[in-house]
Amino acid sequence: MLKKKVRKQLADIVGEENLLDSPQDLLVYSYDSTPDFQSMPDAVIKPRSTEEVSQICKVCNESGTPIVPRGNGTNLSAGTTPLRGGVVMIFTHMDKLLEIDEENLTATVQPGLITLDLINAVEAVDLFYAPDPSSMKISTIAGNINEGSGGLRGLKYGVTRDYVMGLEFVLANGDIVRTGGKLAKDVAGYDLTRLMVGSEGTLGVMTEATLKLIPKPETKKTMLALYPDLETAGDTVSTIIANKIIPATLEFLDQPTIRVVEDFAQIGLPTDAGAILLIEQDGPKEVVERDMERMREICVQTGALSAEIAKTPEEGEALTAARRSALSALARMKPTTILEDATVPRSKVAEMVRAIEEIAKKHNVEICTFGHAGDGNLHPTCMTDARDREEMKRVEEAFEDIFMRAIEMGGTITGEHGVGAMKSPYLAWKVGETGVEIMKNIKMAFDPNNIMNPDKIFAKNEKFRVVVSK
Amino acid sequence: MLKKKVRKQLADIVGEENLLDSPQDLLVYSYDSTPDFQSMPDAVIKPRSTEEVSQICKVCNESGTPIVPRGNGTNLSAGTTPLRGGVVMIFTHMDKLLEIDEENLTATVQPGLITLDLINAVEAVDLFYAPDPSSMKISTIAGNINEGSGGLRGLKYGVTRDYVMGLEFVLANGDIVRTGGKLAKDVAGYDLTRLMVGSEGTLGVMTEATLKLIPKPETKKTMLALYPDLETAGDTVSTIIANKIIPATLEFLDQPTIRVVEDFAQIGLPTDAGAILLIEQDGPKEVVERDMERMREICVQTGALSAEIAKTPEEGEALTAARRSALSALARMKPTTILEDATVPRSKVAEMVRAIEEIAKKHNVEICTFGHAGDGNLHPTCMTDARDREEMKRVEEAFEDIFMRAIEMGGTITGEHGVGAMKSPYLAWKVGETGVEIMKNIKMAFDPNNIMNPDKIFAKNEKFRVVVSK
Repeated sequence: MLKKKVRKQLADIVGEENLLDSPQDLLVYSYDSTPDFQSMPDAVIKPRSTEEVSQICKVCNESGTPIVPRGNGTNLSAGTTPLRGGVVMIFTHMDKLLEIDEENLTATVQPGLITLDLINAVEAVDLFYAPDPSSMKISTIAGNINEGSGGLRGLKYGVTRDYVMGLEFVLANGDIVRTGGKLAKDVAGYDLTRLMVGSEGTLGVMTEATLKLIPKPETKKTMLALYPDLETAGDTVSTIIANKIIPATLEFLDQPTIRVVEDFAQIGLPTDAGAILLIEQDGPKEVVERDMERMREICVQTGALSAEIAKTPEEGEALTAARRSALSALARMKPTTILEDATVPRSKVAEMVRAIEEIAKKHNVEICTFGHAGDGNLHPTCMTDARDREEMKRVEEAFEDIFMRAIEMGGTITGEHGVGAMKSPYLAWKVGETGVEIMKNIKMAFDPNNIMNPDKIFAKNEKFRVVVSK
Repeated sequence: MLKKKVRKQLADIVGEENLLDSPQDLLVYSYDSTPDFQSMPDAVIKPRSTEEVSQICKVCNESGTPIVPRGNGTNLSAGTTPLRGGVVMIFTHMDKLLEIDEENLTATVQPGLITLDLINAVEAVDLFYAPDPSSMKISTIAGNINEGSGGLRGLKYGVTRDYVMGLEFVLANGDIVRTGGKLAKDVAGYDLTRLMVGSEGTLGVMTEATLKLIPKPETKKTMLALYPDLETAGDTVSTIIANKIIPATLEFLDQPTIRVVEDFAQIGLPTDAGAILLIEQDGPKEVVERDMERMREICVQTGALSAEIAKTPEEGEALTAARRSALSALARMKPTTILEDATVPRSKVAEMVRAIEEIAKKHNVEICTFGHAGDGNLHPTCMTDARDREEMKRVEEAFEDIFMRAIEMGGTITGEHGVGAMKSPYLAWKVGETGVEIMKNIKMAFDPNNIMNPDKIFAKNEKFRVVVSK
């Protein structure tokens, strides 16, 4: 519970109506989309302006009250759970699209803006905001920026990081910092903008962002290719890239995922295929047609059972929607769904999926894998039951093995979900003890009292293993 | 001069032949391409491996000896001058292209590799490394990364920052850190990779980089458009973007620059035009033809005196080469050439160039302006004589006014050259006192003894002015 004085100070800033601390309010904000990390906050606060965020930070910094900035809690790494209590800060009052600048190709947004609302607004004026995390219908922009979110279009268009041109953020001490701007080029000192991207709320509170837009692609086509097995699908991926084609999306589903998704979406996916590739290309009409035809040939030549280009945009959209529904479909199967995002170089995707199968077998757990074949970003997803502590232990061991294998293949523990509390014990496996030490020093440089989303990224108890060197 | 013990320790690491300290060697490395910042180092050292770099750092850290990592000294911000003496570290023994990975579309390189050698090598296998600083014939990759270099293709393809996927670097204490990898997506902790990009050698010594490659554009066309004045050229730029066309390059030269470049390159530029736009598009043949034709129409409609598409690739190449020669051409005019890179939002380019003209007049100095109209990155270039201290004072005042105007327009003090020693007094104008404070804390987190390229980015004596708020 907040101290009486602190509570009064905060209520004076935002008004009683924007400081929630009834048991039901606290319960709602005690968890995010990550299973098994629930923890109660002391209050929920809804600032209405940057100035209010600054005042809140000052009060919290002086009283040692943790601040957990939170969008809509779609993250999958326990990045927004209030593990040490404190205030959860939400941005329902700061959710505006402030400007679309068609001359400089930028959008200026408040932190609480819903990703899809931005995407729809810019597409209405024939512009394009490419990052498209699967949660985009409910995720917020500042959540995306804080997690360094990816999406299906990452291969061709890059990720959230590549679209953040400038930021306004508030430090723990209440100071307001503005970086970058409507500038394609800016090298004035260290790149604080990109340091903030993916910092998971541990360095400051984002209050405004300037985002890069690009022209909306003229057209788009979608193709579904079926494979007898994963390795054959992997051959197609390699051959497409070797032919210097970069499709807009290049997604795959393994057999167990296909079954579950078809059961959920009912769009006629062949449940006996060993693997599926979902391929999209967008851009000028001639290029899309040429690339799609060439990719269809490559699918067949490398051993696809079939490869069909969707006849209408609606048919294509149904396929993409089915892929996007994978998490929802899997989540119906068991009480608890743990979706991870170990990532490997593109050339290692098939090898990694096989390794995941073996690891699942070894630990006797159920794991489906789908994800972004084009950029090596896999989503091994475990269906389990958090109440079964013995099984949960095996699940954790399986994911440890998965992270270790990914790193052995030159990969990483997280491609687009962030470290959060969930993967913090494994961070040193990827960046080394020295890397973690440097990151901790950076955290101290921004937030010496450690009030900004504490216990995220950095673990209290790190798991040591012999790290495989390059 | 190095202490005898330190000299011996360093010579034991790299061998006598790789530790230079004759007066002529020291003289050669006492300056870079920035006028008026000469300073003698105590020694020049040529490591042969990451392990040697690590050992050198340890010796220097323990003895408080500054290290100035240096590529080929093409930087224009006094970024590699040994202002406090110490050792200049050069990478002539670490200049290999280690690997082109055609499956993962990456190149792995050593720091001393020449940018153009990389570009040529990857183009030979139909891949593309887009960042193309004008100095690319002699600049090194680690120099580009440390400065966050841009180039002519920045508008469409982004800058060096957007192509660095992973780094190996050595900290002041000798620890070796590896970040990122052949991974399109990686959010394992803070983005140290991008923090290192543009850090100007102040955080560590880069020893290896993994760079992103893309497929080589199929074809390219070049167009030259002549204008009665700057504002009309600015209208063309705005209209091209408003038509959702992003050309590969969109460069402009003002009238004084046109004259000097034509005098140097002799390719028939019309010296009476008020401004020139050089426009290139690359990509699939159909798209290039369509975009070029549409852009030619736009040039004419918005008031160009003429707009001609080059008939052959050679003719196009001659035009681009002329633009790239601008600095060399201007440098012939007076003993000292100071080339700056104040940057504004694209929509403000014409207004900013006019402001530069007025500022030059006010301070009675000679400034030509050319640069990247598409991304607002201007190169106001002053022809002067460093021996004329009275004129140099006026030049400095003029550039102060230029930086201030750029910031008032939502711009920055440096788009692609870095802060170095030259622009360090103005950093706070862009990022605020708090921004500078945070950056200094980051520097301390990496390099507590301040041996890594000291006196760069951060000024001893900052220039205070009332900073215009947003």
